Amino acid sequence: MRTLFHFPLSPASRTVRLVLAEKRLPFEAIIERAWEHRPEFLAMNPAGDVPVLVEDNGLIVPDSYVICEYLEEAYSDTPLLGRTLAERVEVRRVMAWFDTLFAREVSGRFIDERVMKRLSGRGNPDGTALREAYAAMRPLMKYVNDLAENRNWLAGNFLSLADFTAAGHLSCLDFIGDIDWSKVPAVRDWYARMKSRPCFRPLLADRVSGITPPEYYTNLDF
Amino acid sequence: MRTLFHFPLSPASRTVRLVLAEKRLPFEAIIERAWEHRPEFLAMNPAGDVPVLVEDNGLIVPDSYVICEYLEEAYSDTPLLGRTLAERVEVRRVMAWFDTLFAREVSGRFIDERVMKRLSGRGNPDGTALREAYAAMRPLMKYVNDLAENRNWLAGNFLSLADFTAAGHLSCLDFIGDIDWSKVPAVRDWYARMKSRPCFRPLLADRVSGITPPEYYTNLDF
Repeated sequence: MRTLFHFPLSPASRTVRLVLAEKRLPFEAIIERAWEHRPEFLAMNPAGDVPVLVEDNGLIVPDSYVICEYLEEAYSDTPLLGRTLAERVEVRRVMAWFDTLFAREVSGRFIDERVMKRLSGRGNPDGTALREAYAAMRPLMKYVNDLAENRNWLAGNFLSLADFTAAGHLSCLDFIGDIDWSKVPAVRDWYARMKSRPCFRPLLADRVSGITPPEYYTNLDF
Repeated sequence: MRTLFHFPLSPASRTVRLVLAEKRLPFEAIIERAWEHRPEFLAMNPAGDVPVLVEDNGLIVPDSYVICEYLEEAYSDTPLLGRTLAERVEVRRVMAWFDTLFAREVSGRFIDERVMKRLSGRGNPDGTALREAYAAMRPLMKYVNDLAENRNWLAGNFLSLADFTAAGHLSCLDFIGDIDWSKVPAVRDWYARMKSRPCFRPLLADRVSGITPPEYYTNLDF
Protein backbone atom coordinates (compact mmCIF):
# COMPACT_ATOMS: atom_id res chain seq x y z
CA MET A 1 0.00 0.00 0.00
CA ARG A 2 1.05 3.60 -0.59
CA THR A 3 3.00 4.70 2.48
CA LEU A 4 3.75 8.12 3.93
CA PHE A 5 6.55 8.59 6.42
CA HIS A 6 5.56 11.66 8.37
CA PHE A 7 5.58 13.40 11.73
CA PRO A 8 2.39 14.81 13.28
CA LEU A 9 3.85 18.24 14.05
CA SER A 10 5.73 18.69 10.76
CA PRO A 11 3.93 21.31 8.63
CA ALA A 12 5.28 19.75 5.42
CA SER A 13 3.98 16.32 6.48
CA ARG A 14 0.57 17.77 7.25
CA THR A 15 0.42 19.48 3.87
CA VAL A 16 1.02 16.16 2.12
CA ARG A 17 -1.47 14.27 4.32
CA LEU A 18 -4.13 16.86 3.44
CA VAL A 19 -3.35 16.76 -0.28
CA LEU A 20 -3.39 12.95 -0.41
CA ALA A 21 -6.74 12.87 1.39
CA GLU A 22 -8.18 15.66 -0.76
CA LYS A 23 -7.19 13.69 -3.86
CA ARG A 24 -8.71 10.55 -2.25
CA LEU A 25 -5.47 8.62 -2.46
CA PRO A 26 -5.43 6.11 0.41
CA PHE A 27 -2.15 5.70 2.27
CA GLU A 28 -0.67 4.15 5.34
CA ALA A 29 0.81 6.80 7.63
CA ILE A 30 3.98 5.84 9.49
CA ILE A 31 5.45 8.19 12.07
CA GLU A 32 9.16 8.78 11.46
CA ARG A 33 11.33 10.34 14.14
CA ALA A 34 13.66 11.86 11.54
CA TRP A 35 16.01 13.28 14.18
CA GLU A 36 17.03 9.72 15.05
CA HIS A 37 18.65 9.39 11.59
CA ARG A 38 17.44 5.83 10.91
CA PRO A 39 19.73 4.51 8.14
CA GLU A 40 16.84 2.95 6.16
CA PHE A 41 15.09 6.32 6.21
CA LEU A 42 18.21 8.24 5.16
CA ALA A 43 18.57 5.82 2.25
CA MET A 44 15.09 6.83 1.09
CA ASN A 45 15.70 10.54 1.62
CA PRO A 46 19.31 11.74 1.84
CA ALA A 47 17.97 15.11 3.02
CA GLY A 48 16.89 13.22 6.15
CA ASP A 49 13.53 14.87 6.68
CA VAL A 50 9.85 13.97 6.56
CA PRO A 51 7.63 13.63 4.62
CA VAL A 52 8.59 10.79 2.29
CA LEU A 53 5.99 9.10 0.10
CA VAL A 54 6.50 5.56 -1.17
CA GLU A 55 4.23 4.51 -4.01
CA ASP A 56 2.98 0.97 -4.62
CA ASN A 57 5.30 0.66 -7.61
CA GLY A 58 8.28 1.43 -5.37
CA LEU A 59 8.77 5.05 -6.44
CA ILE A 60 10.16 7.04 -3.51
CA VAL A 61 9.16 10.70 -3.41
CA PRO A 62 10.70 12.84 -0.65
CA ASP A 63 10.05 16.51 0.25
CA SER A 64 6.62 18.14 0.35
CA TYR A 65 7.31 20.33 -2.69
CA VAL A 66 8.43 17.34 -4.74
CA ILE A 67 5.49 15.25 -3.50
CA CYS A 68 2.92 17.96 -4.27
CA GLU A 69 4.27 18.49 -7.81
CA TYR A 70 4.40 14.72 -8.32
CA LEU A 71 0.83 14.21 -7.12
CA GLU A 72 -0.37 16.96 -9.47
CA GLU A 73 1.30 15.24 -12.41
CA ALA A 74 0.40 11.66 -11.47
CA TYR A 75 -3.17 12.24 -10.24
CA SER A 76 -4.63 15.13 -12.16
CA ASP A 77 -8.31 14.35 -11.44
CA THR A 78 -8.39 16.81 -8.57
CA PRO A 79 -6.22 19.67 -9.90
CA LEU A 80 -4.85 21.87 -7.13
CA LEU A 81 -2.38 24.11 -8.98
CA GLY A 82 -4.64 26.17 -11.23
CA ARG A 83 -4.93 26.24 -15.00
CA THR A 84 -3.32 29.38 -16.40
CA LEU A 85 0.36 30.23 -16.04
CA ALA A 86 -0.52 33.20 -13.83
CA GLU A 87 -2.71 31.08 -11.54
CA ARG A 88 0.01 28.48 -11.18
CA VAL A 89 2.61 31.14 -10.40
CA GLU A 90 0.40 32.54 -7.65
CA VAL A 91 -0.33 29.13 -6.10
CA ARG A 92 3.36 28.24 -6.04
CA ARG A 93 4.33 31.71 -4.79
CA VAL A 94 2.05 31.39 -1.75
CA MET A 95 3.31 27.85 -1.13
CA ALA A 96 6.92 29.08 -1.26
CA TRP A 97 6.05 32.04 0.99
CA PHE A 98 4.87 29.62 3.69
CA ASP A 99 7.54 26.97 3.19
CA THR A 100 10.45 29.40 3.22
CA LEU A 101 9.67 32.75 4.90
CA PHE A 102 6.90 31.66 7.27
CA ALA A 103 8.67 28.39 8.14
CA ARG A 104 11.98 30.10 8.82
CA GLU A 105 10.61 33.04 10.84
CA VAL A 106 7.58 31.56 12.57
CA SER A 107 6.42 27.95 12.35
CA GLY A 108 9.88 26.38 12.27
CA ARG A 109 10.96 28.38 15.31
CA PHE A 110 7.88 27.62 17.42
CA ILE A 111 7.97 23.94 16.55
CA ASP A 112 11.69 23.68 17.20
CA GLU A 113 11.47 25.46 20.55
CA ARG A 114 8.27 23.90 21.85
CA VAL A 115 8.34 20.41 20.33
CA MET A 116 11.60 19.28 18.73
CA LYS A 117 13.87 20.42 21.55
CA ARG A 118 12.03 18.24 24.02
CA LEU A 119 11.58 15.27 21.72
CA SER A 120 15.25 15.24 20.76
CA GLY A 121 16.51 15.98 24.27
CA ARG A 122 17.89 19.46 23.55
CA GLY A 123 16.46 21.09 26.65
CA ASN A 124 13.83 23.75 27.27
CA PRO A 125 12.35 26.39 24.97
CA ASP A 126 14.45 29.53 24.74
CA GLY A 127 12.41 32.58 25.77
CA THR A 128 14.30 34.93 23.46
CA ALA A 129 13.71 32.70 20.44
CA LEU A 130 10.00 32.49 21.27
CA ARG A 131 9.74 36.27 21.65
CA GLU A 132 11.43 36.72 18.28
CA ALA A 133 9.03 34.25 16.72
CA TYR A 134 6.03 36.09 18.18
CA ALA A 135 7.38 39.40 16.87
CA ALA A 136 7.97 37.93 13.41
CA MET A 137 4.54 36.33 13.46
CA ARG A 138 2.51 39.53 13.68
CA PRO A 139 3.25 41.11 10.28
CA LEU A 140 3.28 37.72 8.55
CA MET A 141 -0.12 36.71 9.96
CA LYS A 142 -1.40 40.13 8.96
CA TYR A 143 -0.28 39.38 5.40
CA VAL A 144 -2.12 36.04 5.46
CA ASN A 145 -5.17 37.84 6.82
CA ASP A 146 -5.01 40.29 3.89
CA LEU A 147 -4.91 37.36 1.46
CA ALA A 148 -7.85 35.66 3.18
CA GLU A 149 -9.82 38.90 3.26
CA ASN A 150 -9.44 39.63 -0.44
CA ARG A 151 -9.81 36.19 -1.98
CA ASN A 152 -12.04 33.15 -1.67
CA TRP A 153 -8.98 31.00 -1.09
CA LEU A 154 -5.41 32.01 -0.29
CA ALA A 155 -4.05 31.97 -3.84
CA GLY A 156 -7.19 33.02 -5.69
CA ASN A 157 -10.74 31.96 -6.32
CA PHE A 158 -10.11 28.24 -6.16
CA LEU A 159 -8.94 25.82 -3.49
CA SER A 160 -5.28 25.04 -4.17
CA LEU A 161 -2.03 23.59 -2.86
CA ALA A 162 -1.45 27.02 -1.30
CA ASP A 163 -4.36 26.44 1.08
CA PHE A 164 -3.09 23.01 2.08
CA THR A 165 0.42 24.35 2.58
CA ALA A 166 -0.91 27.17 4.77
CA ALA A 167 -3.09 24.71 6.67
CA GLY A 168 -0.05 22.49 7.28
CA HIS A 169 1.78 25.35 8.99
CA LEU A 170 -1.13 26.97 10.81
CA SER A 171 -2.58 23.71 12.13
CA CYS A 172 0.78 22.88 13.75
CA LEU A 173 0.89 26.32 15.39
CA ASP A 174 -2.73 25.89 16.49
CA PHE A 175 -1.87 22.49 18.01
CA ILE A 176 0.79 24.06 20.21
CA GLY A 177 -1.52 26.98 20.99
CA ASP A 178 0.44 29.80 19.38
CA ILE A 179 -2.20 31.46 17.24
CA ASP A 180 -4.35 34.29 18.58
CA TRP A 181 -7.28 33.86 16.21
CA SER A 182 -9.01 37.03 17.42
CA LYS A 183 -6.27 39.08 15.72
CA VAL A 184 -6.76 37.49 12.28
CA PRO A 185 -10.52 37.07 11.74
CA ALA A 186 -10.30 36.45 7.99
CA VAL A 187 -7.71 33.72 8.54
CA ARG A 188 -9.98 32.21 11.18
CA ASP A 189 -12.90 32.08 8.74
CA TRP A 190 -10.70 30.50 6.06
CA TYR A 191 -9.26 28.02 8.58
CA ALA A 192 -12.76 27.05 9.79
CA ARG A 193 -13.62 26.17 6.19
CA MET A 194 -10.42 24.14 5.79
CA LYS A 195 -10.97 22.38 9.11
CA SER A 196 -14.45 21.22 8.14
CA ARG A 197 -13.21 19.43 5.01
CA PRO A 198 -13.15 15.63 5.32
CA CYS A 199 -9.40 15.57 4.50
CA PHE A 200 -8.75 17.46 7.75
CA ARG A 201 -10.23 14.90 10.15
CA PRO A 202 -7.13 12.73 10.63
CA LEU A 203 -5.09 15.82 11.57
CA LEU A 204 -7.57 16.77 14.27
CA ALA A 205 -7.15 13.31 15.78
CA ASP A 206 -3.34 13.67 16.05
CA ARG A 207 -1.87 13.30 19.49
CA VAL A 208 1.76 13.85 20.42
CA SER A 209 2.94 12.49 23.75
CA GLY A 210 3.53 15.23 26.27
CA ILE A 211 1.79 17.97 24.28
CA THR A 212 -1.87 18.73 24.86
CA PRO A 213 -3.48 20.86 22.17
CA PRO A 214 -5.88 23.61 23.31
CA GLU A 215 -9.54 22.61 23.50
CA TYR A 216 -10.49 24.59 20.40
CA TYR A 217 -7.93 22.65 18.29
CA THR A 218 -10.50 20.00 17.37
CA ASN A 219 -13.48 22.35 17.48
CA LEU A 220 -14.86 23.15 14.02
CA ASP A 221 -16.60 26.23 15.40
CA PHE A 222 -13.74 27.84 17.35
CA MET B 1 12.07 43.69 -21.85
CA ARG B 2 11.99 40.70 -19.52
CA THR B 3 13.65 41.75 -16.27
CA LEU B 4 15.30 39.79 -13.50
CA PHE B 5 15.86 41.34 -10.10
CA HIS B 6 18.79 39.41 -8.66
CA PHE B 7 21.91 39.57 -6.54
CA PRO B 8 25.27 38.25 -7.79
CA LEU B 9 25.99 36.14 -4.70
CA SER B 10 22.49 34.72 -4.28
CA PRO B 11 22.50 31.02 -5.29
CA ALA B 12 18.81 31.17 -6.20
CA SER B 13 19.44 34.19 -8.44
CA ARG B 14 22.30 32.42 -10.16
CA THR B 15 20.17 29.33 -10.76
CA VAL B 16 17.58 31.44 -12.55
CA ARG B 17 20.16 33.40 -14.57
CA LEU B 18 21.63 30.10 -15.78
CA VAL B 19 18.24 28.62 -16.64
CA LEU B 20 17.12 31.74 -18.52
CA ALA B 21 20.36 31.76 -20.52
CA GLU B 22 20.20 28.01 -21.17
CA LYS B 23 16.67 28.47 -22.52
CA ARG B 24 17.91 31.44 -24.60
CA LEU B 25 15.47 33.83 -23.01
CA PRO B 26 17.03 37.31 -23.07
CA PHE B 27 16.59 39.42 -19.95
CA GLU B 28 17.78 42.58 -18.33
CA ALA B 29 19.49 41.85 -15.01
CA ILE B 30 18.95 44.40 -12.25
CA ILE B 31 20.82 44.06 -8.97
CA GLU B 32 18.46 44.27 -6.00
CA ARG B 33 19.81 44.84 -2.50
CA ALA B 34 16.90 42.95 -0.95
CA TRP B 35 18.06 43.63 2.61
CA GLU B 36 17.24 47.32 2.07
CA HIS B 37 13.52 46.39 1.85
CA ARG B 38 12.69 48.72 -1.06
CA PRO B 39 8.88 49.13 -0.96
CA GLU B 40 8.48 48.71 -4.75
CA PHE B 41 10.40 45.44 -4.52
CA LEU B 42 8.37 44.19 -1.54
CA ALA B 43 5.22 44.93 -3.53
CA MET B 44 6.49 42.59 -6.24
CA ASN B 45 7.58 39.90 -3.79
CA PRO B 46 6.08 39.98 -0.29
CA ALA B 47 8.67 37.36 0.71
CA GLY B 48 11.22 40.12 0.16
CA ASP B 49 13.94 38.09 -1.50
CA VAL B 50 15.62 37.79 -4.89
CA PRO B 51 15.21 36.55 -7.56
CA VAL B 52 12.07 38.09 -9.05
CA LEU B 53 11.33 37.76 -12.76
CA VAL B 54 9.07 40.25 -14.51
CA GLU B 55 7.79 39.16 -17.90
CA ASP B 56 7.05 41.49 -20.81
CA ASN B 57 3.32 40.95 -20.28
CA GLY B 58 3.67 42.19 -16.70
CA LEU B 59 3.52 38.80 -15.00
CA ILE B 60 5.61 38.90 -11.82
CA VAL B 61 7.24 35.60 -10.85
CA PRO B 62 9.15 35.54 -7.54
CA ASP B 63 11.23 32.72 -5.96
CA SER B 64 13.64 30.46 -7.87
CA TYR B 65 11.44 27.36 -7.44
CA VAL B 66 8.40 29.21 -8.78
CA ILE B 67 10.43 30.76 -11.61
CA CYS B 68 11.97 27.41 -12.65
CA GLU B 69 8.58 25.66 -12.71
CA TYR B 70 7.07 28.61 -14.59
CA LEU B 71 9.84 28.64 -17.19
CA GLU B 72 9.39 24.90 -17.75
CA GLU B 73 5.69 25.40 -18.38
CA ALA B 74 5.95 28.60 -20.42
CA TYR B 75 9.03 27.72 -22.50
CA SER B 76 9.10 23.98 -23.03
CA ASP B 77 11.48 24.00 -26.03
CA THR B 78 14.46 23.28 -23.80
CA PRO B 79 13.00 20.86 -21.26
CA LEU B 80 15.03 20.68 -18.05
CA LEU B 81 12.82 18.61 -15.75
CA GLY B 82 12.82 15.20 -17.42
CA ARG B 83 10.00 13.29 -19.07
CA THR B 84 8.88 10.42 -16.85
CA LEU B 85 7.37 10.88 -13.41
CA ALA B 86 10.42 9.20 -11.85
CA GLU B 87 12.86 11.47 -13.70
CA ARG B 88 10.95 14.56 -12.64
CA VAL B 89 10.85 13.39 -9.02
CA GLU B 90 14.61 12.93 -9.03
CA VAL B 91 15.32 16.33 -10.63
CA ARG B 92 13.09 18.10 -8.11
CA ARG B 93 14.47 16.04 -5.23
CA VAL B 94 18.05 17.13 -5.99
CA MET B 95 16.88 20.74 -6.44
CA ALA B 96 15.14 20.61 -3.06
CA TRP B 97 18.19 18.99 -1.47
CA PHE B 98 20.32 21.97 -2.49
CA ASP B 99 17.75 24.68 -1.83
CA THR B 100 16.82 23.44 1.63
CA LEU B 101 19.48 21.23 3.25
CA PHE B 102 22.58 22.53 1.46
CA ALA B 103 21.41 26.15 1.65
CA ARG B 104 20.59 25.94 5.36
CA GLU B 105 23.73 24.07 6.43
CA VAL B 106 26.37 25.30 4.02
CA SER B 107 25.86 27.90 1.30
CA GLY B 108 23.47 30.12 3.25
CA ARG B 109 25.82 30.18 6.23
CA PHE B 110 28.97 30.98 4.26
CA ILE B 111 27.24 33.69 2.24
CA ASP B 112 25.65 35.20 5.32
CA GLU B 113 28.89 35.27 7.28
CA ARG B 114 31.25 36.31 4.50
CA VAL B 115 29.06 38.52 2.31
CA MET B 116 25.71 39.59 3.75
CA LYS B 117 27.00 40.60 7.17
CA ARG B 118 29.38 43.10 5.64
CA LEU B 119 27.01 44.37 2.98
CA SER B 120 24.21 44.93 5.49
CA GLY B 121 26.48 46.34 8.21
CA ARG B 122 26.11 43.45 10.66
CA GLY B 123 29.79 43.17 11.51
CA ASN B 124 32.45 40.53 10.92
CA PRO B 125 32.16 36.83 10.12
CA ASP B 126 31.67 34.65 13.19
CA GLY B 127 34.42 32.03 13.42
CA THR B 128 32.19 29.48 15.14
CA ALA B 129 29.53 29.76 12.45
CA LEU B 130 32.17 29.31 9.73
CA ARG B 131 33.64 26.26 11.47
CA GLU B 132 30.16 24.74 11.71
CA ALA B 133 29.58 25.43 8.04
CA TYR B 134 32.88 23.75 7.11
CA ALA B 135 32.02 20.72 9.24
CA ALA B 136 28.54 20.47 7.66
CA MET B 137 30.05 20.90 4.21
CA ARG B 138 32.20 17.77 4.22
CA PRO B 139 29.53 15.04 4.23
CA LEU B 140 27.24 17.07 1.98
CA MET B 141 29.93 17.66 -0.65
CA LYS B 142 30.78 13.97 -0.42
CA TYR B 143 27.14 13.22 -1.26
CA VAL B 144 27.30 15.54 -4.29
CA ASN B 145 30.54 13.85 -5.32
CA ASP B 146 28.79 10.46 -5.15
CA LEU B 147 26.04 11.77 -7.41
CA ALA B 148 28.56 13.22 -9.89
CA GLU B 149 30.56 10.00 -9.87
CA ASN B 150 27.63 7.74 -10.65
CA ARG B 151 25.68 9.79 -13.17
CA ASN B 152 26.32 11.89 -16.25
CA TRP B 153 24.53 14.79 -14.63
CA LEU B 154 23.48 15.29 -11.02
CA ALA B 155 19.92 14.02 -11.34
CA GLY B 156 20.46 11.40 -14.03
CA ASN B 157 21.62 11.02 -17.58
CA PHE B 158 20.39 14.39 -18.80
CA LEU B 159 21.21 18.00 -17.99
CA SER B 160 18.45 19.32 -15.74
CA LEU B 161 17.31 22.04 -13.35
CA ALA B 162 19.15 20.06 -10.65
CA ASP B 163 22.48 20.89 -12.32
CA PHE B 164 21.64 24.59 -12.54
CA THR B 165 20.48 24.65 -8.94
CA ALA B 166 23.69 22.97 -7.80
CA ALA B 167 25.72 25.35 -9.96
CA GLY B 168 23.95 28.32 -8.38
CA HIS B 169 25.06 27.23 -4.91
CA LEU B 170 28.52 25.94 -5.73
CA SER B 171 29.48 28.91 -7.92
CA CYS B 172 28.71 31.28 -5.04
CA LEU B 173 30.86 29.22 -2.69
CA ASP B 174 33.60 29.12 -5.32
CA PHE B 175 33.43 32.91 -5.66
CA ILE B 176 34.13 33.37 -1.96
CA GLY B 177 36.80 30.66 -2.10
CA ASP B 178 35.21 28.08 0.16
CA ILE B 179 35.43 24.95 -1.97
CA ASP B 180 38.42 22.64 -1.80
CA TRP B 181 38.05 21.06 -5.25
CA SER B 182 40.82 18.53 -4.64
CA LYS B 183 38.50 16.76 -2.16
CA VAL B 184 35.64 16.32 -4.63
CA PRO B 185 37.17 15.39 -8.00
CA ALA B 186 33.91 14.19 -9.57
CA VAL B 187 32.18 17.44 -8.62
CA ARG B 188 35.12 19.34 -10.11
CA ASP B 189 34.76 17.49 -13.42
CA TRP B 190 31.01 18.14 -13.45
CA TYR B 191 31.54 21.79 -12.53
CA ALA B 192 34.14 22.25 -15.29
CA ARG B 193 31.53 21.04 -17.78
CA MET B 194 28.91 23.42 -16.34
CA LYS B 195 31.36 26.32 -16.35
CA SER B 196 32.18 25.87 -20.02
CA ARG B 197 28.55 26.23 -21.10
CA PRO B 198 27.73 29.56 -22.74
CA CYS B 199 25.03 30.25 -20.13
CA PHE B 200 27.73 30.40 -17.47
CA ARG B 201 29.75 33.28 -18.92
CA PRO B 202 27.84 36.17 -17.32
CA LEU B 203 28.29 34.57 -13.88
CA LEU B 204 32.04 34.40 -14.33
CA ALA B 205 32.07 38.14 -15.06
CA ASP B 206 30.28 39.00 -11.78
CA ARG B 207 32.09 41.33 -9.47
CA VAL B 208 30.99 42.28 -5.97
CA SER B 209 32.61 45.32 -4.37
CA GLY B 210 35.01 44.38 -1.63
CA ILE B 211 35.13 40.66 -2.48
CA THR B 212 37.81 39.32 -4.79
CA PRO B 213 37.15 35.82 -6.07
CA PRO B 214 40.11 33.42 -6.23
CA GLU B 215 41.99 33.36 -9.53
CA TYR B 216 40.60 29.98 -10.54
CA TYR B 217 37.01 31.29 -10.27
CA THR B 218 36.98 32.38 -13.91
CA ASN B 219 39.34 29.66 -15.10
CA LEU B 220 37.59 26.98 -17.14
CA ASP B 221 40.47 24.57 -16.51
CA PHE B 222 40.83 24.91 -12.73
